Amino acid sequence: MIESTPLKNVSSNINIEFDSEKQAQLIYDSILLEFETAPDYRSSMTITVEGKSIIINIDAEDSTSFRASINSAIKWIKLSLEINNLTN
Amino acid sequence: MIESTPLKNVSSNINIEFDSEKQAQLIYDSILLEFETAPDYRSSMTITVEGKSIIINIDAEDSTSFRASINSAIKWIKLSLEINNLTN
Repeated sequence: MIESTPLKNVSSNINIEFDSEKQAQLIYDSILLEFETAPDYRSSMTITVEGKSIIINIDAEDSTSFRASINSAIKWIKLSLEINNLTN
Repeated sequence: MIESTPLKNVSSNINIEFDSEKQAQLIYDSILLEFETAPDYRSSMTITVEGKSIIINIDAEDSTSFRASINSAIKWIKLSLEINNLTN
């Protein structure tokens, strides 16, 4: 099935809240590394840290690329949580 | 690996823009049917239609349930786009 064209754009902002600012910064630093080495998402994704939260904005032309971006973002977060788990 | 506890909450709002209000309403009506028969997402997900856009809000305790909700939402949208494709 080819995706129909009426879908013009899928945009989302994801707010991930942590226990502390230190936690958010730690995870943000490790995600940033992943993010910068996965350039194909860069045009459609931005990652920022604000207080206890990491905010991911995604802007995609279709649901397939939107899903790919979200899945990557979640994978990075889970990975950094696991690394954080090991180092604590 | 058990997910570390510092992650308190993942919330997101997803804005899906269509070509027309009629299109958005058509897809919304078909998604709503799916949404209402998948109650386990209901506590963490709301779906509304505003003009040309469908807006999905997700509020999850961890990234796993967040990913499940988003994947369902995208699956419903793709399905309704395909149905829409058949009926046009």
